[in-house]
Amino acid sequence: MRSIITLLTDFGYESYFVPSMKGVILSLNPNAVIIDITHAIPQFNVYKAAFTLWASYKYFPRGTIHVVVVDPGVGTLRRAIAVKTRNYYFVGPDNGVLMMAAEDDGIVEIRAIENREFMRPVVSSTFHGRDVFAPVAAYLSLGLDISLLGPRVTDPVRLQGITSRVSRGFANSAIVYIDHFGNAYTGIREGELKILGLEYGDELRVVIPRRNVDLRVRFLRSYGYANEGEALALINSEGFLELSINRGSFAQRFGVEEGDEVEISVIK
Amino acid sequence: MRSIITLLTDFGYESYFVPSMKGVILSLNPNAVIIDITHAIPQFNVYKAAFTLWASYKYFPRGTIHVVVVDPGVGTLRRAIAVKTRNYYFVGPDNGVLMMAAEDDGIVEIRAIENREFMRPVVSSTFHGRDVFAPVAAYLSLGLDISLLGPRVTDPVRLQGITSRVSRGFANSAIVYIDHFGNAYTGIREGELKILGLEYGDELRVVIPRRNVDLRVRFLRSYGYANEGEALALINSEGFLELSINRGSFAQRFGVEEGDEVEISVIK
Amino acid sequence: MRSIITLLTDFGYESYFVPSMKGVILSLNPNAVIIDITHAIPQFNVYKAAFTLWASYKYFPRGTIHVVVVDPGVGTLRRAIAVKTRNYYFVGPDNGVLMMAAEDDGIVEIRAIENREFMRPVVSSTFHGRDVFAPVAAYLSLGLDISLLGPRVTDPVRLQGITSRVSRGFANSAIVYIDHFGNAYTGIREGELKILGLEYGDELRVVIPRRNVDLRVRFLRSYGYANEGEALALINSEGFLELSINRGSFAQRFGVEEGDEVEISVIK
Repeated sequence: MRSIITLLTDFGYESYFVPSMKGVILSLNPNAVIIDITHAIPQFNVYKAAFTLWASYKYFPRGTIHVVVVDPGVGTLRRAIAVKTRNYYFVGPDNGVLMMAAEDDGIVEIRAIENREFMRPVVSSTFHGRDVFAPVAAYLSLGLDISLLGPRVTDPVRLQGITSRVSRGFANSAIVYIDHFGNAYTGIREGELKILGLEYGDELRVVIPRRNVDLRVRFLRSYGYANEGEALALINSEGFLELSINRGSFAQRFGVEEGDEVEISVIK
Repeated sequence: MRSIITLLTDFGYESYFVPSMKGVILSLNPNAVIIDITHAIPQFNVYKAAFTLWASYKYFPRGTIHVVVVDPGVGTLRRAIAVKTRNYYFVGPDNGVLMMAAEDDGIVEIRAIENREFMRPVVSSTFHGRDVFAPVAAYLSLGLDISLLGPRVTDPVRLQGITSRVSRGFANSAIVYIDHFGNAYTGIREGELKILGLEYGDELRVVIPRRNVDLRVRFLRSYGYANEGEALALINSEGFLELSINRGSFAQRFGVEEGDEVEISVIK
Repeated sequence: MRSIITLLTDFGYESYFVPSMKGVILSLNPNAVIIDITHAIPQFNVYKAAFTLWASYKYFPRGTIHVVVVDPGVGTLRRAIAVKTRNYYFVGPDNGVLMMAAEDDGIVEIRAIENREFMRPVVSSTFHGRDVFAPVAAYLSLGLDISLLGPRVTDPVRLQGITSRVSRGFANSAIVYIDHFGNAYTGIREGELKILGLEYGDELRVVIPRRNVDLRVRFLRSYGYANEGEALALINSEGFLELSINRGSFAQRFGVEEGDEVEISVIK
């Protein structure tokens, strides 16, 4: 069956880990189409993996199987799980990494992966990506009923989300993601702009206490409307209020990191 | 249809940008075969992207659709274009990034991408790779007639090329590309060696004024004919006169960058 | 034919080298499925490429064609070879890079690649990945009989392996591989633990003379059984005695490199 299986790991691109997983999948389902989400998640950064999955999972065809292996607890008693959602399957460790995406799509059923029939004959203690998650994904792509994997799970581990406080003219939030270009996503969502009273053309005061950042930026529609090197704010493709620099890196210029608190005031 | 779509971006390998594009393509054409050219173009380096596309596009099967997203002007009034050439399609921003390859293959027709029917229902201001270029490529792979995308374009943006002056025994050029191994490609082409009067066995004097480089190298057939660590010149696989070091990095040893002027004299 | 071809190179991810190879393959066999092992092998590190191939080749379906291009001798008189083993094909330069995997699977036949009919019409001196190895792999994927490539080779170049001396309570070995997480694989194999007399719960004394490392670690089943930041030893997924740090990098903390000698004593 020509099913799509995506892989998202912190295994890097230089090691034999990822191709070994692909070999296992293709040996079980030679027609599987394997797509890399990324393998460059910073090591053990479960939160960044969860965000990356959430931002990309939904663009794949219905029935796609998303496998995530960011798994510092591999080989301990942490559970392995498979999640059936309204449109997709998710496979990975039960450390919260799957849940942001799975809950976004709507969880139908979660199963612990315990049935050794769907694992490789010998399961190592350190590489469940190859020995557990890859074969489970391959079997799901062949039509395996998720309920055969193991008992139902009702208490999956969840990551704690970042919450913003938004009121008229002022918001308190945090940097939830920094992308490849150094754009810093605040936790403020497009739907909250009305409460904030923010409109194109307004100026914003941006304060990032940890870095003593206190600057004024324009709220524009895209990078190219700012001058080269000018800091700006915009609503990005994922619907977040984003701080950026036209043709530069906001994160690098101001030394900002994911998790940093940020305060936004609207200047009319 | 099992068409090939290639992707070339400056999005990096660690972000959700590239897999989101792949998901969009596979949702529209589940049989598309997606091949990465690279996603590690230095940010906004339109010239390096254009060269990389030019060096690789021609090895793909006839009908391949090449998508390039190196697009500092995203969301502004810069045009998005699709180009039909003798053997391929090219899709990307109208900033010159497609033209070196497209003109090499022979342009048949250029269209502005304006018809929203072939974009995602909501088009963000900052991620046309996902919302415009990916769906357009998918529709082309399904047989869409390029003329349905929008009006004809007759004045596409072109990059300024690097020109060399080559005469008997002396050439004035520049470094047009530095590859993964630190090999520095001059703008001098294989076909110009006759004018230059350069033959295997000759020595060359290489001057790179910006770096105060002034050295003598042998003109050899491949790296392995030089001693380990020896600088040499050769005609590389793309037909450029290349400066390299056997098992070393010419660019790193001499601090050379793309765009640096270089003077070559033949020593008989 | 929907054959699988894997690629393993030191070409990096940012250059046009790898996609050019893929284009050549797909032009000859549009149904080939191309899987990247890695392209981030440190430049010219034939040993690391050989290990990476060995660690991953065996998980692919029978008939997979593994292409390796780590080839500092390209364009010189070094031979190019294709190897048929019990379950796979291997294609690459005759510098030892294929042999660790090929001998592991069981060599059936080795042929020198000399027949220009199965190369690109013009063969450059510097890019045999595109001009020789890619087309040969494509033709093999279409069913080409390996014997048509060229004369039989009976004296392939082999890499010198690392040998360990293991006795009761003491072993002398070396670091054979450092992975993405900084885990350092010693040359001691799982099957030698009995001779060493090592059992879970034991402590080990680890001495790495070049780095003046002399430490005691616990021998555990997986990373997560050590405290965060604690050094430990375990048997990893490839069956090696591995030195690691839970949620840290052993190689980085102790400055350890591949090839470093290591002495292990069991403390009961």
